[in-house]
Amino acid sequence: MSEDWIVRACPPVSSVHATAALARQNVLTKPPGSLGIVETLAIRLAGLQSAAPRADNVPIILFAGDHGITAQSVSAYPSAVTVEMLHNFAGGGAAIAVLARELGVPLQVIDAGTLAATEIAGVICDKPRRGTRDFSREPAMTADEVAFALAAGRRAVERAALGADLVILGEMGIGNTTAAAAVAAALLGAPASDLVGAGTGLDTQGMRHKARVITEALGVHGLGRPDVPAFDVLQHVGGLEIAALAGAMIAAAQNRIPVLADGFIVTVAALAAVRINPSCAPWLLYSHRSLEAGHRLVLDALAAEPILDLKLRLGEGSGAALALPIVRLACALHAHMATFEEAQVSGRAP
Amino acid sequence: MSEDWIVRACPPVSSVHATAALARQNVLTKPPGSLGIVETLAIRLAGLQSAAPRADNVPIILFAGDHGITAQSVSAYPSAVTVEMLHNFAGGGAAIAVLARELGVPLQVIDAGTLAATEIAGVICDKPRRGTRDFSREPAMTADEVAFALAAGRRAVERAALGADLVILGEMGIGNTTAAAAVAAALLGAPASDLVGAGTGLDTQGMRHKARVITEALGVHGLGRPDVPAFDVLQHVGGLEIAALAGAMIAAAQNRIPVLADGFIVTVAALAAVRINPSCAPWLLYSHRSLEAGHRLVLDALAAEPILDLKLRLGEGSGAALALPIVRLACALHAHMATFEEAQVSGRAP
Repeated sequence: MSEDWIVRACPPVSSVHATAALARQNVLTKPPGSLGIVETLAIRLAGLQSAAPRADNVPIILFAGDHGITAQSVSAYPSAVTVEMLHNFAGGGAAIAVLARELGVPLQVIDAGTLAATEIAGVICDKPRRGTRDFSREPAMTADEVAFALAAGRRAVERAALGADLVILGEMGIGNTTAAAAVAAALLGAPASDLVGAGTGLDTQGMRHKARVITEALGVHGLGRPDVPAFDVLQHVGGLEIAALAGAMIAAAQNRIPVLADGFIVTVAALAAVRINPSCAPWLLYSHRSLEAGHRLVLDALAAEPILDLKLRLGEGSGAALALPIVRLACALHAHMATFEEAQVSGRAP
Repeated sequence: MSEDWIVRACPPVSSVHATAALARQNVLTKPPGSLGIVETLAIRLAGLQSAAPRADNVPIILFAGDHGITAQSVSAYPSAVTVEMLHNFAGGGAAIAVLARELGVPLQVIDAGTLAATEIAGVICDKPRRGTRDFSREPAMTADEVAFALAAGRRAVERAALGADLVILGEMGIGNTTAAAAVAAALLGAPASDLVGAGTGLDTQGMRHKARVITEALGVHGLGRPDVPAFDVLQHVGGLEIAALAGAMIAAAQNRIPVLADGFIVTVAALAAVRINPSCAPWLLYSHRSLEAGHRLVLDALAAEPILDLKLRLGEGSGAALALPIVRLACALHAHMATFEEAQVSGRAP
């Protein structure tokens, strides 16, 4: 892996731009810091972009994949829903399609590994196989398949996002909270039960079963011990769309495009991406804390301060899309508010 | 008060529209409930508006007032800043002015009781006096002045918001976190120290002093005992802009206009409004949980589930303005997402 594109260093944050942005925030007509996370966002984006941060051109890339582990009854919905939803994304009826239209941003949907046997109109097909293998019995992917999926993420960024101000990454895949929880448990060395949530709608018994399936699989693949490389974790218990997301994040960061990550699955992909190539970390912004139980743990591991906390658990990039207006308003406030001097407003009392 | 406009009943929520909206949310192509607060918002707005909730026409009304209590050194900024900021609102350089432009909504600024001696271009003057009295020594207002300010709130709604889908209410007033904390402490029967925060930027010692000033004033005015009418609380330790906010909320609710409340001070005004006229409660939506220490307590007393938690502490209506895009997207998702049947997507596994 060491000479591969995936470990090439991402550019550093510009401390000059970030410092200038902080200095500007401190003279705008408001008590310093009183816009909280909205200020932090403008300052972070400035460090990644320029002294005048922007979030106008923000494509959404959505990676879909299917999961052999669904054979173990870990999801409330059948695998068929993944491909049915691809049609719904392309047809404009899915949540993320509605959000993309309202926000005026393009949506690119990638079949990174669904069970679809044929190409779907409006969906880009870039997959090494149809669905992963059942990781309770065998590795989900071969090493070549993981490498293919990581590169599919890079190809998607090069196709849809070069020159963008920011890119939103989302996912769809029945069974992928199970794969994501398994990846996170392995990478964090945490018990599966801490990372398992309801997904699309399991009850308590269903969640207990899901945790047991993951725990056993981690044992089968020898992922209980620390320091297993993230690539190997992805290969054994990950998903094609999860690997594609990780590849897309690293490629975006290498190309100076900040990423606005969606919920649990995308955040787990971020954890994998940061383990594979730590230099991408500063380029990843986190849009929301979801209701999925393990999300908080993974966000904490990434020292993330998410923008929203709306009790979402949909995926598709919907949480990141909902956060985009806040990012845009943060940029507008940074650009257009008057300074104390310009507005002739007094400073603090002596 | 009993025959006054202020206690006239507000219309009830339409359970027909709310039930229809919930039923629709449950057949849209997502696991039911997976859009969390975004779904709740659409359903609540439907109950207040119609089966097709909207947030297009959303005026912002900002009430400003000054506070005699600033003589007791309770604020990090001098009182002069209130009037200076009125010019900044009208001039377009303040945070809320930038947000209003970006959101494409009108901003109406009301001088409900600042120290300004003359009218300010672009600001509506509707005040019974210049600033309140120092409530550490005497009641902040007379009963007539409170009644005037409540009616100023109603006049502002009638001027700017009749027929609106939603109205955003904000405030500005150096010293008003002190008045708001005093009102909340009296209404909730809670210690002042639980309701006092940094305001525009006090340190720990400043906050301790602020709490002591409030505790002493509540004693002076006999507001330590429970069941003092909210009107009397406003009169003794409130503010002209706080009373105007309460009046605006009740008038909006009476006119079937849902309110999107901003931060700590507006939420305290909401608590007073609900105590004066409980039938307005369903019409009040809460935009965010601020960093101001007492906000959580007041929100909990109102059983509020705020949309955002961005560590804001600015006021001006800025938090409500930042939440508006989420409300708008909630309406768009409700209106435009496909149902499982329309999109031919499978339901839950048997």
